[in-house]
This record gives sequence, C-alpha cells and structure tokens, in this order.
Amino acid sequence: MNKKDNAILLISCPDRQGLIAAVSEFIHSNNGNIEDADQHVDRRSNVFFMRIEWELNNFNIDRNQIEKEFLPIAEKFNMKWTLSFSKDKIKTAIFVSKYLHCLYDILYKYREGQLHLDISLIISNHSDAADIAKQFGIKYVIIEKNKENKIKQEEKEMALLKKHDIDTVILARYMQILSKKFVDNYRFKIINIHHSFLPAFVGAKPYEQAFTRGVKIIGATGHYVTEELDRGPIIEQDVTRVSHRDSVEDLKRIGEELEKFVLSRAVRWHAGKKILVYKTSEGNKTVVFD
Amino acid sequence: MNKKDNAILLISCPDRQGLIAAVSEFIHSNNGNIEDADQHVDRRSNVFFMRIEWELNNFNIDRNQIEKEFLPIAEKFNMKWTLSFSKDKIKTAIFVSKYLHCLYDILYKYREGQLHLDISLIISNHSDAADIAKQFGIKYVIIEKNKENKIKQEEKEMALLKKHDIDTVILARYMQILSKKFVDNYRFKIINIHHSFLPAFVGAKPYEQAFTRGVKIIGATGHYVTEELDRGPIIEQDVTRVSHRDSVEDLKRIGEELEKFVLSRAVRWHAGKKILVYKTSEGNKTVVFD
Amino acid sequence: MNKKDNAILLISCPDRQGLIAAVSEFIHSNNGNIEDADQHVDRRSNVFFMRIEWELNNFNIDRNQIEKEFLPIAEKFNMKWTLSFSKDKIKTAIFVSKYLHCLYDILYKYREGQLHLDISLIISNHSDAADIAKQFGIKYVIIEKNKENKIKQEEKEMALLKKHDIDTVILARYMQILSKKFVDNYRFKIINIHHSFLPAFVGAKPYEQAFTRGVKIIGATGHYVTEELDRGPIIEQDVTRVSHRDSVEDLKRIGEELEKFVLSRAVRWHAGKKILVYKTSEGNKTVVFD
Amino acid sequence: MNKKDNAILLISCPDRQGLIAAVSEFIHSNNGNIEDADQHVDRRSNVFFMRIEWELNNFNIDRNQIEKEFLPIAEKFNMKWTLSFSKDKIKTAIFVSKYLHCLYDILYKYREGQLHLDISLIISNHSDAADIAKQFGIKYVIIEKNKENKIKQEEKEMALLKKHDIDTVILARYMQILSKKFVDNYRFKIINIHHSFLPAFVGAKPYEQAFTRGVKIIGATGHYVTEELDRGPIIEQDVTRVSHRDSVEDLKRIGEELEKFVLSRAVRWHAGKKILVYKTSEGNKTVVFD
Repeated sequence: MNKKDNAILLISCPDRQGLIAAVSEFIHSNNGNIEDADQHVDRRSNVFFMRIEWELNNFNIDRNQIEKEFLPIAEKFNMKWTLSFSKDKIKTAIFVSKYLHCLYDILYKYREGQLHLDISLIISNHSDAADIAKQFGIKYVIIEKNKENKIKQEEKEMALLKKHDIDTVILARYMQILSKKFVDNYRFKIINIHHSFLPAFVGAKPYEQAFTRGVKIIGATGHYVTEELDRGPIIEQDVTRVSHRDSVEDLKRIGEELEKFVLSRAVRWHAGKKILVYKTSEGNKTVVFD
Repeated sequence: MNKKDNAILLISCPDRQGLIAAVSEFIHSNNGNIEDADQHVDRRSNVFFMRIEWELNNFNIDRNQIEKEFLPIAEKFNMKWTLSFSKDKIKTAIFVSKYLHCLYDILYKYREGQLHLDISLIISNHSDAADIAKQFGIKYVIIEKNKENKIKQEEKEMALLKKHDIDTVILARYMQILSKKFVDNYRFKIINIHHSFLPAFVGAKPYEQAFTRGVKIIGATGHYVTEELDRGPIIEQDVTRVSHRDSVEDLKRIGEELEKFVLSRAVRWHAGKKILVYKTSEGNKTVVFD
Repeated sequence: MNKKDNAILLISCPDRQGLIAAVSEFIHSNNGNIEDADQHVDRRSNVFFMRIEWELNNFNIDRNQIEKEFLPIAEKFNMKWTLSFSKDKIKTAIFVSKYLHCLYDILYKYREGQLHLDISLIISNHSDAADIAKQFGIKYVIIEKNKENKIKQEEKEMALLKKHDIDTVILARYMQILSKKFVDNYRFKIINIHHSFLPAFVGAKPYEQAFTRGVKIIGATGHYVTEELDRGPIIEQDVTRVSHRDSVEDLKRIGEELEKFVLSRAVRWHAGKKILVYKTSEGNKTVVFD
Repeated sequence: MNKKDNAILLISCPDRQGLIAAVSEFIHSNNGNIEDADQHVDRRSNVFFMRIEWELNNFNIDRNQIEKEFLPIAEKFNMKWTLSFSKDKIKTAIFVSKYLHCLYDILYKYREGQLHLDISLIISNHSDAADIAKQFGIKYVIIEKNKENKIKQEEKEMALLKKHDIDTVILARYMQILSKKFVDNYRFKIINIHHSFLPAFVGAKPYEQAFTRGVKIIGATGHYVTEELDRGPIIEQDVTRVSHRDSVEDLKRIGEELEKFVLSRAVRWHAGKKILVYKTSEGNKTVVFD
C-alpha cells in the first residue's frame, strides 16, 4: 500500500513535443523527486497519456497550491488532468445483491490493507450480506427495488451516497441496472464486474449463454458503468479454460474465482489512480498504468 | 502419431444403463484390447458420448465385418456412430488466401509427422502460396473469386475436391464465405480459424474491433463451418493478454500465434477422431476427447 | 456438490485386456447405472487407472457387501483399489499459521457448499486465526511449537486428530515441517500449498527467490506431503505473469490468489476422490480425474 | 516494424532526483520529439532504468555527435548507457542442431518483416538445416563438434562471427554448451531457448524431467547465456497446462509451441533494444520495456 506522501498527476492531451520535459521539469525545478512515471501515446487518435507520481516531502510548492502552479502548463498543452494525493483514500460504497463472493473478497483484502480505499457503506436490495457487513464493521443499508419503485429507490441511494460523501461505487455482483441519471452522477466512478469475457455474452445469465454456445474458455470483465448495458470502458479481464465436462454450475463456481480476481484488480487500480479513460469510435477504452 | 492398427468408435445416444458394459464387452469378448476409452454425459440433454479405441491385432472380427457385428448393439441403444481406423488418413484440402502463417504452420507440422492426415490439395483465390505449396510438394490450384463468379467457382472447387476424394477442408485464413450448398456437402468436415474469441467480434476485422473496444485479452477460435457465419460448433479456443500499448498491428502479430496454435490443435483432434458434435438450443457444440 | 447416493471405485493395476469390461459388467449386471467413468494408462509403466462412479439406488448389492462382491475381480486383475460413497464426507482438519487467506478461502467455500468435506478442527501454532474459526463455528486449538518441543507437540496434534477421527489434513500455509512419523500416519492424506511453481524454489521464501532470480511467471503448487520437503506428488499448479515492475510484496499479494485457487482445487479433487497416486523413478505423481 | 529514423537511449544508474527531467530536457531542448519513454526503479537496489526513443528528423544534433553531447549528463548521473538507432539492424547469427522448429519460426517471421534484424549466418553441428537455410537464402556453415575438437571448432565459429561482423547469436535449440571464452565475447548478446520453466529442470532432457516429476504445467524460457548453464538472466517465459494424459512425446510437441513463441519474443525485444540487464545477489535479471 502506498503510505507515502506523494502527489499524482493523471494527464491526457493531444500529443505534442516537449510534454514529458515540461511536466518533469515542473516537478524537478520545484525539488520534487519522481517516484513513478509512465506515458503512452495512442497513435491513431494522437492522444498522449501520462501518470506521474512524486514525493511531496521536500517539494517547494504547498499541496494546496500545486493546481494553481501547474495550471499554465496544463493550459499550454490543452490537458485534461486530475491531481490527487496518495494519502487520500477514495470514499467508496459497495452495492451487492445475493451473490456474496466478490463482496467478501474485497472486504477481506480491504481489511488486509491491500486496497487503498475508505469503504464506508454497503447498499443492497436484500438482507443477505448484513452479517458480513457487521462482521467487517461497515454500515449496511437495505434498499429494496422492484420495477415500480426503482426510480424512487435510486433517489434514496443517491441521497445516501451524497450524505456519506461517496466518490466511487463498486457493483459487487449487484443485479440491478442503474439509471442514466445515476450513471451520469458518477461518470467513470462506478466499477462493475460482469461475469463474462465481454463483449461476448452481454446481459443476463452469461454462464448459461457460455454453456449453450459451447465456448472452451470463460471470462470475467471489470468495467466502468455507462448508460449502455455492459458497454462501458473495460478495465480488466481474465479467463480460464473449461471443457465439455463442466456443467453450468461448474462454470459458475469456476467463474467466481475470475470475478473476484478481476474486480479486486480493477478496484485496486482505480484506488491507485492508475486508470485513464478516453473516447474511441466504439465508445470508451482505458489506459491502465499498472 | 498413431502408427498402430486400431479401430475407433465414436458414439452418441440417449443415456441409458449398460452402455459402457455393452460396448466394452463387445470388444473384450472378441479379444480386443482397449487402448483408450472416454465417456461423457450431458446431463441437460441426457446424451451419452463415447470414444473407444482398441487394437485390431488379435481382434476376432475382420475389420470389414466390425460394422455389421456392432450394428445390433448400436440399434439397441439408438446410437449415432462412426467407425474408423487409425491407419486411415483423412484426405484433406487446405483453402488459403493471402495470410500464410497458418498454412505454413500446418504444413510444417504435417511434414514433421505431427498431423495424421493426407494433405493432397491446396486451393487459393490468389497465387501467394504457390511457392510454399511447391516447397512442400503439394498440388496448388488457383480459383479466383469475385462477387459475380462466386457460385460458379465454388462448383469448380467442389468438383476438384470430389476428384481428389477430399473428406476434410481446412480454411487456413481463407477470406471467402462458402455457400450453404458447399457447407452442406461437408457437414462438420470444414474447419475454420476465426481470429477472435468467439462469440466476441463475429465477422470482418476482429482485431480492429478488439482494439476499438479496448479488450484486455484477445483470442482465436477453431470451429466447424455451418451456414451461419462464425456460428458453427467451437472446437478449440485460446487467448493472450494485450494492453493499451498494443496497436492493431501488434494485435495482428500476437494473434497470429494464437491462430496457428488453435487451428493446428483443432485439426489434430479432427484427424484423431476426437470430436463429437451435438445440437443445443443455441446451435451446436462439441465434445472433444483430447 | 455430490448429493447423490453413489459408489466410487478408484483402481490401479497392471494394464490388461478386459479390465473395463469386467468392472462395467460387474456394475451393470447388478443393475447399477454408471454416472461417470474415466480411465488412463501410463504406457511407460503399463499401469491402468480407473475411477468409476455409479448410482446405488437400484443397485442389487447392499453397500456393505460391495467390497466382498468385488473382491474376486480385484484379485483377478491384481488391483489396488478403494471403494467410497459420495454421501460420506471426509473428516478434515486444517493446520494454519499466520497467513490466513487460504484458510479463509476454504472456509468460505466450505460454507457455500462447494467442498464436500466435514471440517471439524483447526490447529495452529498461533492465535491469529481464532476469530475466523469462531466465526465459522469450527473448533480451534493452539499448539505452539518451537525447536525443542516440536516432537512432543506433534504427539498432541496426532492425538487430537485421532480423537476427532480425522482422515485428511490441509496445510493452509502452515509454516512448520511435519515429522516422518506424522507423514507416515497420513500417507497421501496431507495436502500442502507451496507458494511456488515446484520444483522451482523449493523451501523457504519462494517469492524472494523468484524475485531475485527474475522469473517472468510465478506459481503455486498443491501437493501431498511426503517425508521429503516439497517433493510430494503434485495435485495441481497454477501460474500468473509478473514483470520487473512487481516488488516482492507484489509477488506475495499476486501469489495469494494463486495459492487460494490451487489449494481449493486440490482439496476439492481430494474430497471428490478424483486423485490416484503412483510411483515413478523420481518419486510419486498423480492422476487427477477432474 | 520500426521504419522510422529514431534514436534510442538505454540507461541504468543509481536513482537520483532530476533524472527524467535531465534526459527529457536534453532531447526537447534540441528539438527532438519523444516517441516512447519508459522508466523503472528497483527499490531494493535503488537502480534507475530508462528507455527513451525520439525522432531524429528535426533533431538539432547530428547523430554522430549525440554521444558526445549527451556525455556530460551521463557522467553527472553516473550512467551506464548505450545509444542506438532504429534504422540499424543488429547483425545476427543463428546456431542450430537437429530440432528445427525454432529456426523455422524465426526465419519465417524474419522474412515477414516481424524481426528487425539482419540474419546473415546460420551455424550448425549438423547438416539438417541446410535446406531451410537455402530456402531462406542465408549462408549455412557446418561446424561439427565432439568432445575432442570442441575448443578448436569454437575458435572457427568465433572467427566466422567476426568475419561476418556478428553482434548477436541466437541459439535456436543448439545442443552444445559454449565455452566461457565464447560467452565472454558476446556478453548478453547470446539468446538461448531452454525448454523448461527455469529454474525448474535445468540441464538435459527437461521434458523427461517434467514428465517424471508429474508437473501440471510445462514451460519454456528465453534467456541470455552466461558461463553458468541455464542460469543467465531470463528475458521471457511462457507456460501451458498439461495433464497425466500427456506422454513425454506430447510434452515435446506441446512445448515446441512455447519454445517458438518465447524465443521469438525474446529476440524481438532484443532487436528493439527493449532489454536492460542488471546484477542481483543471485546473478542477473532483466528489465524488459515491452
């Protein structure tokens, strides 16, 4: 875990000469020590991406002034950018329904100090996870949903998120689709685990679909939620081999491992500010500086 | 490679008590030594699958009489079944266009004795592979195709296949869609390599699609060709991890390895009579006794 | 999970004609319906392996009489064999030290009904896992060990295992080496998870070793414990890619996932009587009928 | 393939503040456009690694003067460094014995333009590959070796390499151990493919060793050759799952695919100047900026 006192810049902008020099010189000339730097250029769209992390220890600029001081460089290069600090933990809520393996996995890793987050709220449409929440000492709120009350209940959820100052939402096998309004409020802040290798088997019952189609490999996909179902930018995927001997129940059991693994990696990268999202002709995709 | 003189039974039928006993007793009571046996039951559809291979050396029934002698058992259990002999090599043609890596890979493995086939014909809509065919000593026929002459040219192809007594067709990145008539003539005898992890990225330019969608893993799929594009029963799949750093060109290059690997495994299993195809609600799937 | 009332035979013997016919005929003629059958022949050593599972529902032989009735066949073919019943759950103890992720994972899957065992005892040389044991309602006994008292403490452990009628021991990252006497008492009944891809990095601190050697892939190995450290027959292995960017701490964290996955699969196969062990020139290896 | 006219700096030095700023500023202030930059710090040894590539198109310094101009920065930071140019192709020889699949694979990819090398010589202790060399139009020299003449023959080999101005040697399953003198002459310039997942199964017959030990996964390792057998810094590894059903011959066949894949990736990275080697307590390891 990052226990250092570092600043992190996430940058995307049109690719241009002098970008790396400008950013690294900004840090160096103010006595910052670069701990980690990574760049990428998408040659098709000519977009430059950068993640740079430096120590604040002897840095000459006060943390509250960094944004202001960096602004001229950002403007010169037409950057989209965010500044964050390694000491700040993202306020996070988990949404869950009746499948609890992903919730369990995240809470265990959270307690072990493997996820640099502040998980302060679990919301569910069922009571199944109440005991687990209690055991990990996290507030648990049941907000039941059906077709009729869905919009009203979402308002309650959003009010609750606001009240708890939540920045990021993890959908740990939450079996409800969120409205466009909800998604817009948390743009690239909602991480979902879909239990297939997207874009294969979008929608309901992907393991059933995989079994019926007779694929030889199954997968799981962690992605940011957008208004289009299972179409948001992919953060991480993993797969495992199956065979004709595996029943649908086997696929579910085997897939659980993938889901846990993929979701926790996606959350970890999100927590570490390692992910940049950008637009393509087909929607959005991610750069992950892992 | 199978250099033994064995008989192979591939069986599928409704699951019923006594199946294994009946088949193994048939072989044993006629002094056959079982070299390999594998079974599977799809519990959903209650279908039983079996592949059993035994030595003909001291077998009491002449190879020409086995079908006749086995018929009563087959009828009793309502079996679909095929009998084949390990010494017989499947007469095979390869279709190829301009991407030659799969062709090369198969011919190399063929020459090394890793594929128990008799490859006697290469058909292409281009001249690109002529040198390779020559180098491996295999007859090469160019049958050019365009939208206008497609049906007529296919007739030529089918006549050629018939003349050479071809049983199986390998589409080694053959960039033409075959007609329903062609497919019907070679039902589950045409093996195609599709350069994506099906059912993701059906159709043209799957690497482009994968790049634009931003998947973190790419794949290749070997399948039997049916009248529906890229919807035939899957024989084998494999995948590899990619990242935002990989361009479309990188995906193509990395994918070539997968394509070779997957196609040659699918061909190998087909040649070894390891594959059974059966119907599901979604089309067809395979049992592969590897 | 296997909730049926089935009998399972695990057989190994010199390969000989008529084996499958004899076993399947024994079951069929007594009105048993074979649910699953798998065979293997190691051609080098000419050893035949079989696992066959059938329904007891309408079986003509009482379960207590099956051994007696099968004995003539077993003797004729010189079989090593064990008969077990799917309804019987193996009495199991878990040994653990301070790393708790594997314990946690097994108990979670156990509670979810994914492991067909009866886990009735957890033994540790530390108190760290006491809370987890309590939470899952399993008896927890601390038996501290140091160089001086090791043998004496092992006697206590063995007495405890005997008292609880324990058949199988899972070493879920138990950081103590067991004596030859202990191992002999539980021959192929002790499953250990080693945190490397054996035979690479035998012994202490495998992640340190992997980091220093600069391997590009790390692994975990589930194996039966024998008197030779990390040399017992391998049940399952898995691996994952790492890079120069991963520190030793990263390798440990990433490896935890592998350890959980591999250990739980090995335990699952053991619980389902899917594993046969046999001797080779280099020790022992396994046949896993997964 | 890199068809651009770029300069590439590979740097390693003690980690210190201002490194990235100094290097990027050197390039930028001389009107160079950075195409690719990657850094890494090994926190244990506090060593900084960098690979930076920039366009020479409008660069103000003549390519012959870059070394001289960069020297003050290199000296200030105590750098080990190499400068190379993307247009220069490394002069390469391949050594091969009787297994030809790796040779074939490399030559095919070379001809396809996937390997940015100049392969001008193939040396073998056998005549087996003569036809392949001819087919690809590359000079083939047979230098037979036995225990008695080994040193003398190596002198011939080295003379030949010198005559052809060879920089890099690929051992494509060359079944001879090279002397310390040979290795010293081509320090981190000799790439070997070892057919196991090192450090497991060092030395002869690794597939036999893997079979006897009963591993569930086999691998291949591409590494630089040092004077210690199979102990040189690892460049790339890959693995694949096997089972008890696979004979030693199956392992060999399956492993061939891994060997080709791993060796060609290692060669590709070497050709692209993506690899840095550094010392650890256990020998050497690599940073691969892929």
